[in-house]
Amino acid sequence: MNPPDPADFVAPAYRSIGESLVRELGKLMVDPAMISLAGGYPGPELFDREGLRAAVDEALREMPVPALQYGPTEGLPGLREQVAQLLGARGTAASAGDVLVTGGSQQGFDLLVRTLLRAGDAALVERPTYTGPLRVLKVAGVRTLTVGVDAHGLDVDELEAMLRDPATPRPKLLYVVPTFANPSGATMPRARRLKLLALAVEHRFVIVEDDPYGQLRFEGAHEPHIAGLVDEVPGSKAWTVHLGSFSKIVAPGLRLGYTVAPPRIRTACVLAKQLDDISSPGFTQATVQRYVAAGRLDAHLPKIVAAYRERANAMRDAIAGHLADRVEFNIPQGGMFMWGRLRDGASTRELLPFAIERKATFVPGDIYYAERADPSSMRLSFATPSPAQIREGVARIGAAIERMGEPGAVPPAWPSVAAAR
Amino acid sequence: MNPPDPADFVAPAYRSIGESLVRELGKLMVDPAMISLAGGYPGPELFDREGLRAAVDEALREMPVPALQYGPTEGLPGLREQVAQLLGARGTAASAGDVLVTGGSQQGFDLLVRTLLRAGDAALVERPTYTGPLRVLKVAGVRTLTVGVDAHGLDVDELEAMLRDPATPRPKLLYVVPTFANPSGATMPRARRLKLLALAVEHRFVIVEDDPYGQLRFEGAHEPHIAGLVDEVPGSKAWTVHLGSFSKIVAPGLRLGYTVAPPRIRTACVLAKQLDDISSPGFTQATVQRYVAAGRLDAHLPKIVAAYRERANAMRDAIAGHLADRVEFNIPQGGMFMWGRLRDGASTRELLPFAIERKATFVPGDIYYAERADPSSMRLSFATPSPAQIREGVARIGAAIERMGEPGAVPPAWPSVAAAR
Repeated sequence: MNPPDPADFVAPAYRSIGESLVRELGKLMVDPAMISLAGGYPGPELFDREGLRAAVDEALREMPVPALQYGPTEGLPGLREQVAQLLGARGTAASAGDVLVTGGSQQGFDLLVRTLLRAGDAALVERPTYTGPLRVLKVAGVRTLTVGVDAHGLDVDELEAMLRDPATPRPKLLYVVPTFANPSGATMPRARRLKLLALAVEHRFVIVEDDPYGQLRFEGAHEPHIAGLVDEVPGSKAWTVHLGSFSKIVAPGLRLGYTVAPPRIRTACVLAKQLDDISSPGFTQATVQRYVAAGRLDAHLPKIVAAYRERANAMRDAIAGHLADRVEFNIPQGGMFMWGRLRDGASTRELLPFAIERKATFVPGDIYYAERADPSSMRLSFATPSPAQIREGVARIGAAIERMGEPGAVPPAWPSVAAAR
Repeated sequence: MNPPDPADFVAPAYRSIGESLVRELGKLMVDPAMISLAGGYPGPELFDREGLRAAVDEALREMPVPALQYGPTEGLPGLREQVAQLLGARGTAASAGDVLVTGGSQQGFDLLVRTLLRAGDAALVERPTYTGPLRVLKVAGVRTLTVGVDAHGLDVDELEAMLRDPATPRPKLLYVVPTFANPSGATMPRARRLKLLALAVEHRFVIVEDDPYGQLRFEGAHEPHIAGLVDEVPGSKAWTVHLGSFSKIVAPGLRLGYTVAPPRIRTACVLAKQLDDISSPGFTQATVQRYVAAGRLDAHLPKIVAAYRERANAMRDAIAGHLADRVEFNIPQGGMFMWGRLRDGASTRELLPFAIERKATFVPGDIYYAERADPSSMRLSFATPSPAQIREGVARIGAAIERMGEPGAVPPAWPSVAAAR
């Protein structure tokens, strides 16, 4: 007999993985005096509303059937061609036929896990890494192994030692954000990328390169994608999957990303997507296709990058002024995040209530670890606030650190925040 | 050691479930003389391009942040409220908080299977039923049991007998399209709906009511949703999930649907969706929210219904003129489909090449069966073609049946079509 309540059918993995800390912190923003250095959201004033309005107008006028009818699961041919060209402009060879359009790169990763991994399989992630993939792996029952990260991203020597150790379970897949990583902000230099490709070939695991931030470089020269180096490492192309997104360069509310994968893996992802949502919306796809084709992305992206440069500089200077003796930070050349560590080894979880009391939020770093969390780590985002808010927010965090260090300081209670991950 | 080719990681279920027959038939439409009575696509000339253009314009002007920023996984509050009101207008009580916005009702079903079913579990479907859910269940390794359908939809007496038989595996879930079903076109009367609810309570399985076509009634009075009758059957609300879609009443290219489910099941689906694509696009959600709020759905839907009435009448009359002595048909009061059966028991798979030769397509019914397929069944759709095309298409199918019956008739070969399911 079935159980008396249908909710008992729910698989344990889906019963609850707790509240999201970033979401709980978001709720605090109903207070207009609160400054958030927490969320990884693009600044909304940087959305190209006018350009998108013109693009959707064009899409409905010039290509109403692709925009409004059922369409191919792989995505609209014109958008797939645009993606191939965008990748080509960054030195990564791809043809339209290689591209699967997805609901953000989050769906791209979810499709890979659905088709390639089973409960008990092993996968590798960075330590720390983005929470989205961590949650997907956890719910899938995948054994998640971690590789350390330093100021230059994934530590490929540590990875090599792990892979050579016969006690390490054989990973099927490694998830990595090699450029302006979330949360570390770090970027892997070319030599590390090449070594990672060689290790993938030798040890037979799929590299899943997620590149949502690569276009947001405000300083220095572009690194090639890992997927752009496969010709230099024989055999590596078959082991490399590239995920990208329009969320950070156009708008997250379009929910559009893409997967470039070897043919049989791509075919499996197409089938999984067909069963999931048939296809991404023609409406958003046609809009982005027209937006890119009209040169609007090329025209607008420099404005986003310039704003992030200004905000990152403001944060860097504020850190130097208010936090440098207390926190050591990685200062990135692009992306959205600065990653820091309290020098005295104190807990950023404990710091957080003191900061909220002073009306500033950040993300304690522990949520980004599958294991061996560094309790002193913290992530600051400069994407959403203005330079003035950034300066004030960093100053408030500095004051919170001061206060926490005073004898007898009692942190205010934020139970929902304390419980969230 | 891992296998030498990463494609060997792909789970067997995702390696291939073959080409889609409806897709293969779609490819024949490059021939402008071909008339398709096969696809279940809304007629594109019925898309309200002007209304949608105005709605997206409004959305970008009046609610740019919900349209373009990351948003709640559950969906935009305003759209969830619209869905609750649409359901309320049909007599089904729901509040905005009960609603999860999905990537079409296909994703709604996929999320339920991900969270509620495991390989080896049993689920019930109609015989025949829509192919989308059949494929999801197959890939999930679910044991799919079938219940017969007659002119009044799901045969609840057969279902009762199955459930009383101790040899029947306990189903966790039953998927049903109770109104203008795909492919049968049949609608369950109220008494059957009530009995189904009672059986769900007694035998403890979740009813998944999928209602993409219910608003497309061109004749007769609306039947209440199954979910609209739960107050009449004590305990049944906990066992009832309702799926809906904007695909057939606004446009499939928006890829928007919704799930209304008991709280703990809904929560599990929200989590699964968060891991899948974070949320449906704010861009499409805000557009539909504005479209409905401005009264455009109410204004436009009667035009769609009127067009389908005219097309259904044309098909009904053409069947009477060309096919009635060869095929028996269910004539529905709404939706998109007429379901027929060759009276002489011949195979519609064999008929199809003769029809293609005469430049008309339909869908042989066998693809809609999880088991015990009726080889003489066929689905005709009146949604896409004009009344004149419908008349001509039906006449061509009549001629194909004539030709197949002639001694020594050899069907032309369409290998890709013959191999597809």
